[in-house]
Amino acid sequence: MSQDPLVIFTPSGKRGRFPVGTPVLTAARQLGVDLDSVCGGRGICSKCQVAPSYGDFAKHGVTVQHDALSDWNAVEERYDQKRGLKEGRRLGCQATIQGDVVIDVPPESQVHRQVVRKAASTRPIVMDPATRLYFVEVQEPDMHEPTGDLERLKRALKAQWDIPSLSTDFSTLTQLQSILRKGGWKITVALHKANNSSDHRLVAAWPGLHEGGIFGLAIDLGSTTIAAHLCDLVTGEVRASSGIMNPQIRFGEDLMSRVSYAMMNPGGAAEMTAAVRDALNTLASEIAAEAGIDPSLILEAVFVCNPVMHHLLLGIDPVELGQAPFALATSDAVDLAAPELGLSAIAPAARVHILPCIAGHVGADAAAVALAEETDTSDDLVLIVDVGTNAELLLGDKTRVLACSSPTGPAFEGAQISAGQRAAPGAIERVEIDPATKEPRFKVIGCDLWSDDPGFAEASAATGVTGICGSGIIEAVAEMRMAGLLDPSGLIGSPAQTGTPRCMPEGRTHAYLIHDATAEGGPRIAVTQGDIRAIQLAKSALYAGARLLMDEMGVETVDRVVLAGAFGAHISTKHAMVLGMIPDVALDKVTGAGNAAGHGARIALCNAAKRAEIQDTVRRITKVETAIEPRFQEHFVAANAIPHATDPFPHLAAAVPLPDVSFNTGGGGEDTGRRRRRRA
Amino acid sequence: MSQDPLVIFTPSGKRGRFPVGTPVLTAARQLGVDLDSVCGGRGICSKCQVAPSYGDFAKHGVTVQHDALSDWNAVEERYDQKRGLKEGRRLGCQATIQGDVVIDVPPESQVHRQVVRKAASTRPIVMDPATRLYFVEVQEPDMHEPTGDLERLKRALKAQWDIPSLSTDFSTLTQLQSILRKGGWKITVALHKANNSSDHRLVAAWPGLHEGGIFGLAIDLGSTTIAAHLCDLVTGEVRASSGIMNPQIRFGEDLMSRVSYAMMNPGGAAEMTAAVRDALNTLASEIAAEAGIDPSLILEAVFVCNPVMHHLLLGIDPVELGQAPFALATSDAVDLAAPELGLSAIAPAARVHILPCIAGHVGADAAAVALAEETDTSDDLVLIVDVGTNAELLLGDKTRVLACSSPTGPAFEGAQISAGQRAAPGAIERVEIDPATKEPRFKVIGCDLWSDDPGFAEASAATGVTGICGSGIIEAVAEMRMAGLLDPSGLIGSPAQTGTPRCMPEGRTHAYLIHDATAEGGPRIAVTQGDIRAIQLAKSALYAGARLLMDEMGVETVDRVVLAGAFGAHISTKHAMVLGMIPDVALDKVTGAGNAAGHGARIALCNAAKRAEIQDTVRRITKVETAIEPRFQEHFVAANAIPHATDPFPHLAAAVPLPDVSFNTGGGGEDTGRRRRRRA
Repeated sequence: MSQDPLVIFTPSGKRGRFPVGTPVLTAARQLGVDLDSVCGGRGICSKCQVAPSYGDFAKHGVTVQHDALSDWNAVEERYDQKRGLKEGRRLGCQATIQGDVVIDVPPESQVHRQVVRKAASTRPIVMDPATRLYFVEVQEPDMHEPTGDLERLKRALKAQWDIPSLSTDFSTLTQLQSILRKGGWKITVALHKANNSSDHRLVAAWPGLHEGGIFGLAIDLGSTTIAAHLCDLVTGEVRASSGIMNPQIRFGEDLMSRVSYAMMNPGGAAEMTAAVRDALNTLASEIAAEAGIDPSLILEAVFVCNPVMHHLLLGIDPVELGQAPFALATSDAVDLAAPELGLSAIAPAARVHILPCIAGHVGADAAAVALAEETDTSDDLVLIVDVGTNAELLLGDKTRVLACSSPTGPAFEGAQISAGQRAAPGAIERVEIDPATKEPRFKVIGCDLWSDDPGFAEASAATGVTGICGSGIIEAVAEMRMAGLLDPSGLIGSPAQTGTPRCMPEGRTHAYLIHDATAEGGPRIAVTQGDIRAIQLAKSALYAGARLLMDEMGVETVDRVVLAGAFGAHISTKHAMVLGMIPDVALDKVTGAGNAAGHGARIALCNAAKRAEIQDTVRRITKVETAIEPRFQEHFVAANAIPHATDPFPHLAAAVPLPDVSFNTGGGGEDTGRRRRRRA
Repeated sequence: MSQDPLVIFTPSGKRGRFPVGTPVLTAARQLGVDLDSVCGGRGICSKCQVAPSYGDFAKHGVTVQHDALSDWNAVEERYDQKRGLKEGRRLGCQATIQGDVVIDVPPESQVHRQVVRKAASTRPIVMDPATRLYFVEVQEPDMHEPTGDLERLKRALKAQWDIPSLSTDFSTLTQLQSILRKGGWKITVALHKANNSSDHRLVAAWPGLHEGGIFGLAIDLGSTTIAAHLCDLVTGEVRASSGIMNPQIRFGEDLMSRVSYAMMNPGGAAEMTAAVRDALNTLASEIAAEAGIDPSLILEAVFVCNPVMHHLLLGIDPVELGQAPFALATSDAVDLAAPELGLSAIAPAARVHILPCIAGHVGADAAAVALAEETDTSDDLVLIVDVGTNAELLLGDKTRVLACSSPTGPAFEGAQISAGQRAAPGAIERVEIDPATKEPRFKVIGCDLWSDDPGFAEASAATGVTGICGSGIIEAVAEMRMAGLLDPSGLIGSPAQTGTPRCMPEGRTHAYLIHDATAEGGPRIAVTQGDIRAIQLAKSALYAGARLLMDEMGVETVDRVVLAGAFGAHISTKHAMVLGMIPDVALDKVTGAGNAAGHGARIALCNAAKRAEIQDTVRRITKVETAIEPRFQEHFVAANAIPHATDPFPHLAAAVPLPDVSFNTGGGGEDTGRRRRRRA
């Protein structure tokens, strides 16, 4: 007696024997092969396309004949004529097994397909969305069996997709009867499955087979900007990315001024909540328009944000976040319906997931960074620094992860700097100072030329040179130190001490002139002693936070440093090291992670299991509170020098020679940096 | 070695031995004795009051000494001074066991206390509400352990009340931080537990011990009137009852005209939905004001209604209910949040439960009647008739329950009657006709005197005599038959045939004059031949429905008949029997159930387990669809005579002698009643 044919699926390598006549989709399901299907094997959705291989497969020990699968059938013929089927492809639900066969499941036919971004630094995302499409045929109503249309839909989902229980959003229920009749009792439903529950929620429905896709928003809700990716929830593809300013800026530039606004103004928190929700609706509409999709097809939104934005988004007064012990109203992940957040621009039944907060100062954005960087599975000890108005720091490896926030203040974002401005066209973002001539050159945002390149004046005419942004001031200070214009204590030398007239007296101190357009009525951009002090305070806070985590971990060095956020994407590693912002480490061990928080939001959007995983990770993270830790003060004070003076920095010293200068004349009232740090 | 003391609780009889020093509350909990506590044994809520008994208890085999419980302690002393403790009462959480003791749990200390209504006909309700109060002490936040306030509340509920999981309504979450701080980390929360789930939902919170009560609404949403009971969710007490007109009346008097309105007018269904939701908010505000409670303490609402009102309440277009196969959008019970129904007058986190519909014509109101009457546990075969614009009928006993609806039309409500009007002050509601003189007398709503009583004119001056309502026309027609003015075919005799000038010619037929105030510019109220025909159509439909259920059940008689609804409360059994509205049964076996639907709503409000029970019962009810059943037509035609002519009616014949008259002269075009019935 001959055996049943052997079926081998690639790339999984799963194999089994099936009776002649078994559909490929059935074989795949029984073996647990990851082969998609929306229509449940009716030959209409084409999601189950497979590519049979023929010939000798020595490594699998089979020879595949050309009649190993059933002939091309009428359903495939019709599908090919209507939509086109790629050469060599078959519909898995139509082709049946006739002999030993090797069947490849192409990536686009996998449910859990991997989505690889162009940027090599980010990890691929495995698709496993919370919201999926199901095509079902529902029994028609009958006077002898007067169950409701919804109950018959539930029965069909149970029978055809093994969905055990269904809850319903009422915006969808109100449409259900007309959709069922329009589709002739064939219907595609979008079901959202919550974590830790077998319950599915009906969030959208369409007559017949829905081919318009379903989408989700991954939103990084920052204090200054709100950035969103619009993702296809089936393919994972990013269909559009967009950002707008957070309109709460008018209530306060940084988080603590917003908390103060809420404390000082009755109804202030509600005002800020309304402002950010309005902005989110605008953003959702714009991004849908940009991608050319109907916003009612947006069925999910995932948010990452710092704790203050988290509370203001939810409509919770953030007052407790402004004072010790910085108690969060809720720290766990939050799942709710879009209308509860006033998100009216997307589907009324859309589900919202907000990542968990790590602590009162370490938000869901840091959780998203941990998710994107997989800190908790790292073999080497990694320090992740996400600099915004507060810096959020994660230090860990697979054994343990620590987190804290550091009150860097807004200097790294260009605020509290004499010529500072937000990163916008016209802002100086790169600075170089010639160590010999002490002359600067710079680049501004919006212009590709350096300021000493021929044609710069013309090329930068549109933007002008308007100020200096965060990355610009960091480079300027570091370059000043490297050019010997600044001593380790942070003092700017006099023209006599430095040999350049650009170090101009300003009151009892000096300022280094980068650009002077006052003759043409333009700005005068200089780095003042005050600017240096502001950067020193910020970088000391940042370094002290990192050092505190290292103490807690019991280490003196870290293996690598990841600079996350827009900040990480724009500042140069070398300059950050020269300033002493981060612990000493080999330069090639410092990498930028791009928008890791945004990438974490996208992971959580595309993969529901990761939501549970990060909630679990967050619970296990050890939170270190800088505000109550005396060692933080010590590290802060000790880190004031440029670079930090207390810890060894062999890697930096080897890479960048720093002039041994000292401009402290012993006199004068210049405060050498021992001001008290302040939060925000 | 002596044994631990024996503790016996009454009335349960539960007993056990406990070590000396065990608090009574602890002993009660371990034995599963139904002893309430909101504060969890902290001596502040006083819900656990018990009454120890002393002396010899031969039947229990114990002698209780006066030192069987610990001495009155400081907590009890303070409570007694502040609030007063009844003579002989102890706080179960404070008094500890010292020796053998018999402890009575008074009814008000039981969680599952029974609520008995004054009306003897309704069954007592056992309290087991879905929403309950819990007092907890929450751990204060701590910088070293930065969980959110909500997460610490969850932990406290788990530790102190064994609540395994908690979901949160966001309107409550936004208030949580200030409530916790205001109460010094002591808080009372209201948790709603959904059926078939261990999940509790946080729906309200108060600082410290909340003593203001929590409330629920049991709402009978009828086509014409909306009636509500405001119930205390702890005691079950009805604090206020109120009703208002359903404003949808302006879109159509009966259900089918409302369905037509929705079909003919784009947006018509939405308009009706908005109207009824507005009215519900008005009703909720009014009833709260009447009871003197804050409407934000209303945390639940339970609705019963017919299928069309059910759909319009939910915002579902009822168009499918207007045409075969009368498919419901959803037939199962519906649970949702108050804001989803636009119920803004009650707590924003209030939960709504809508009872299941039995079929497209047999609504959640019939389900509520089944719940109130416990049809499915009855030993004898009972027919329940709930007459509105459609009559809903249930027939069954503990073996099987059948249901159908009958298209009686609105004649029983006074519509389609020449002098008909709604039951309102001035409407004739009772009629008697002297068999000898053929003279009528009547009563109007709003006046206690009969029309032939001295002083009637003065007493009825305020209301006047404005028309005849449903119960009035039924009595009038039955009295006319009993007085020999009407023959079994439904023909009104001429003055010559009847011997009274009140049987006045009107066109080719006659009308019986009840009241003529035309001389004073008032109305002329007569029962016309057309009125008789309308009542015949309605009662034939009702009887045919009952007969169809009896066929389906395979019986020729029923044991008893229950008349539910306002109709049942107001018409006289005898007159209904004379008309042949219901199957023949001994007069004392016909009872009115009052507002059984409203009582069913109240049961479901006060007892969550009953919700699951009725859903289960409804699933098991056999639905009989009158519209497609040929036997319905046969019964309908055969039931046209007054009383119905096809079935024997020995009980009626024995109770009420009916004159053997016939006014059919054999000529003329008078249709003898074989008009086609119409729905609605």
